[in-house]
Amino acid sequence: MSRFLDACYRRPTDATPVWFMRQAGRYQPEYRALREKYDLLTLLRTPELAVQVTLLPKPLGVDALILFADILLPLEPLGLGLRFVPGQGPVLEHPLRTADDIARLQPYAVEEALGFVLETVRGVRQVEPRLPLIGFAGAPFTLASYAIEGGGSRHYRRTKALMYARPDAWQHLMAVLTQVTIDYLRAQVRAGAQAVQVFDSWVGALSPGLYRAAVLPHLQRLFAALGDLGVPRIYFSTGTAGFLEAVREIPAEVFSVDWRVGLDAAWQRLGGPDRVAIQGNLDPIALFAPPQRLRAEVQRVLEEAAGRPGHIFNLGHGILPQTDPDQVRRLVEWVHTHR
Amino acid sequence: MSRFLDACYRRPTDATPVWFMRQAGRYQPEYRALREKYDLLTLLRTPELAVQVTLLPKPLGVDALILFADILLPLEPLGLGLRFVPGQGPVLEHPLRTADDIARLQPYAVEEALGFVLETVRGVRQVEPRLPLIGFAGAPFTLASYAIEGGGSRHYRRTKALMYARPDAWQHLMAVLTQVTIDYLRAQVRAGAQAVQVFDSWVGALSPGLYRAAVLPHLQRLFAALGDLGVPRIYFSTGTAGFLEAVREIPAEVFSVDWRVGLDAAWQRLGGPDRVAIQGNLDPIALFAPPQRLRAEVQRVLEEAAGRPGHIFNLGHGILPQTDPDQVRRLVEWVHTHR
Repeated sequence: MSRFLDACYRRPTDATPVWFMRQAGRYQPEYRALREKYDLLTLLRTPELAVQVTLLPKPLGVDALILFADILLPLEPLGLGLRFVPGQGPVLEHPLRTADDIARLQPYAVEEALGFVLETVRGVRQVEPRLPLIGFAGAPFTLASYAIEGGGSRHYRRTKALMYARPDAWQHLMAVLTQVTIDYLRAQVRAGAQAVQVFDSWVGALSPGLYRAAVLPHLQRLFAALGDLGVPRIYFSTGTAGFLEAVREIPAEVFSVDWRVGLDAAWQRLGGPDRVAIQGNLDPIALFAPPQRLRAEVQRVLEEAAGRPGHIFNLGHGILPQTDPDQVRRLVEWVHTHR
Repeated sequence: MSRFLDACYRRPTDATPVWFMRQAGRYQPEYRALREKYDLLTLLRTPELAVQVTLLPKPLGVDALILFADILLPLEPLGLGLRFVPGQGPVLEHPLRTADDIARLQPYAVEEALGFVLETVRGVRQVEPRLPLIGFAGAPFTLASYAIEGGGSRHYRRTKALMYARPDAWQHLMAVLTQVTIDYLRAQVRAGAQAVQVFDSWVGALSPGLYRAAVLPHLQRLFAALGDLGVPRIYFSTGTAGFLEAVREIPAEVFSVDWRVGLDAAWQRLGGPDRVAIQGNLDPIALFAPPQRLRAEVQRVLEEAAGRPGHIFNLGHGILPQTDPDQVRRLVEWVHTHR
């Protein structure tokens, strides 16, 4: 069996499993070499290349692989025009700016439109049958914020303004994104993904009230619709320390929390070690500390988990491009040898 | 007496007091008119102009004025070279990049170097003796992050790397900034400020452990050193919902929290309505909602305070430049007429 899958179901493991968000990425020389030959969208859309990238972190000793893809890929078949601008990040050329823009949206046939992602999933499973493969998707709020803002945002002004002014349009947008995400993740699992993670990277911009009223019901529907797949469901969010009691109402096996809350405190507020597994929660910037200080931070996280089954070691967010791969390698070793 | 000052000391008031961070600012046509004639540093450094700007929000009906100044002004006498770049925000031309850069820093004579701010305080009190005037300063961590990063930051990579790698240099930097801030706020109170707010705008980037070890002791020293002034001390932070139990250990009369945590939950975790006053916590983006929806959000915040003495209505962060001044005016009226 797998340490990672066992921990998702809170079964005892011989060591704490560890993997990283963006474990395949710009901090790796092998990835940068590929990016010199191919632009990001080509890497994402070419299954043989995406398989290769997904497998890059294997030598680090991680306990799971995560599909190499981008959370924004499902916005493209909606006609939003996805581009990646060097130094600026993702841009949606046709953002949703009015209720009319939103009214036109409908779920689409995911297997056709995003077939290349499913091909990647199958490819990874074929080449690497041993390490579990995590499929993933963006959460409806986080996708909606990109779709409305047209890219990353600091204040989410247009997104929240729409939530306040046009709850009908917001409702439709979230319903469409939720349905697309359900179809997308079910297809990934059919293609071979052994766990799914839903990334709600920016939902921490909301108040507890707005989260509960305008986001949580869609997440509950999303996670419930994945319940029969027989794979663990991971809900990832950041900046949600103010409303973990609402987050807890999502039917997930695993909650991934960031470093801005204590792991043990978060675990208790999410239902406790007898009810859910927890993933996290080292600050990605701790990888810039001297090795002995990094080791102390790793130990602190492991000690907060107190050796209880159901802890998956991870960062609170993705690995930064400037990170030294040797630090990542050390971290994996320390997690695995911690007693 | 004053509603605002009474609420700071948890004394009953006839209505909930309200003021706003950045209540004098770009959302106001009067402010924009001044900015067409003067650049930001000129406005900040010319007491007669800064007095004029401080008074701009009076017609809104707010219960307090806040000094028009910038949290980064005290970094300039340290030789960091402060500039404001249109569209980009503040830039420090000589950021602190090495432990040697930091070792050279020493506290300076605030009354001389920042005399123009104290002049502004005296000017406001002379022109407007009725409304209480809030003095303020940046908190040591937030100032340090600007000083090290050279401006705003997303990940605070250099700041945290220094905290991890050079605790000795970090300690010296925080000690100098804490001393300067103590001197600066004491001078503001001597000049007539009737309350002081310390802005820890970016401290929510830290983990609970790092906050407690590397920041909290300096804040405790800072607030303790203001304890004999006879004015309420307000600690403002955002994104700290994960470690309010540590924040609570700061000896402040008032804690200002952002919208990402429930007001009542935050109040309890900060010691409860019998121990401290609370300021907040409407999302500044709620001002972009239709008036009736804004009103509902305002009522929600007031109801979380449950009419208990010790609530000062405010936003969770500053007013955005795109805000409609009529919405701000309505908000003030609704807070004052809420029963």
